Amino acid sequence: MSNHAALPVLGQDATECCAPVVREPLGEEAAAELARMFKALSDPVRLRLLSLIASHEGGEACVCDLTGPFDVSQPTISHHLKVLREAGLVGSERRGTWVYYWVLPAALARLSALLAPPAASPA
Amino acid sequence: MSNHAALPVLGQDATECCAPVVREPLGEEAAAELARMFKALSDPVRLRLLSLIASHEGGEACVCDLTGPFDVSQPTISHHLKVLREAGLVGSERRGTWVYYWVLPAALARLSALLAPPAASPA
Repeated sequence: MSNHAALPVLGQDATECCAPVVREPLGEEAAAELARMFKALSDPVRLRLLSLIASHEGGEACVCDLTGPFDVSQPTISHHLKVLREAGLVGSERRGTWVYYWVLPAALARLSALLAPPAASPA
Repeated sequence: MSNHAALPVLGQDATECCAPVVREPLGEEAAAELARMFKALSDPVRLRLLSLIASHEGGEACVCDLTGPFDVSQPTISHHLKVLREAGLVGSERRGTWVYYWVLPAALARLSALLAPPAASPA
C-alpha cells in the first residue's frame, strides 16, 4: 500500500498536457471530449468496475472476475465495460475464452490533473 | 501562472480521505455519490461553466459573466449552474440583483485524488 498517490509520475505529465479546469477557461472541443469521459464515470456500476479492474492483482481483470460483485446481469456488465472502453478509460483484449480489461492510466491522470486545484494562491 | 498544480495542498488532504480508484475497490455508497458528481461534469457546457467560474478573477463569477460565452439561453445556463451546485461542486450566493458562483475546491480535489494514478509501482 503506497501512501503517496498525490505525487503520480503520470499526473505530472498530464498536468503539462492539460491546463487544470481552475487555471483557464476550457475550450469547446476539449470540453466535449472530457465530458464524454466524465459521462463514462457517471454511473456507480461503471465506477466500481473501473476500480475493480484498476485494483485487481496485476492491474488487469478478466470479465469473469467482474460479474460476481454486482447484482446486474453479465450483458449489463459487458455494456458498461464497452462504455468505459469507448471513452478511452480502459483497454481490453480477448485471450481464449475471456476478455481481459486494464485501465489506461494516462486517461485517468488527465482527468485527475484537470480537476487538481492550483497550488495555494501565490503567497 | 503556477506550474505546480500537481502538488495541491487540498489534493493531499483529499487523498487522505478517499482512496484512489486504482488502489482498492470502491464501495457501493461511495460509488453512488461520486457518480453523481461525475454526472454533473458529464456535460460540455457544465464543464466550461465550472472552468469559467474557477478561472474568473477573484475565483468567483456573477451569473451575468457566464452567459456571454455560450450559445444557450440564460435559463439553460441557470439550470446547469443548479446541477453543479446540487452536486456540491460550486457554491453560490445572491448579492443584490445577481447570483455569484465559486467552485468548492475540496470537491474537485476529492475527484482529482480519486483518479490519480498510484505512484510508480514499488520499485
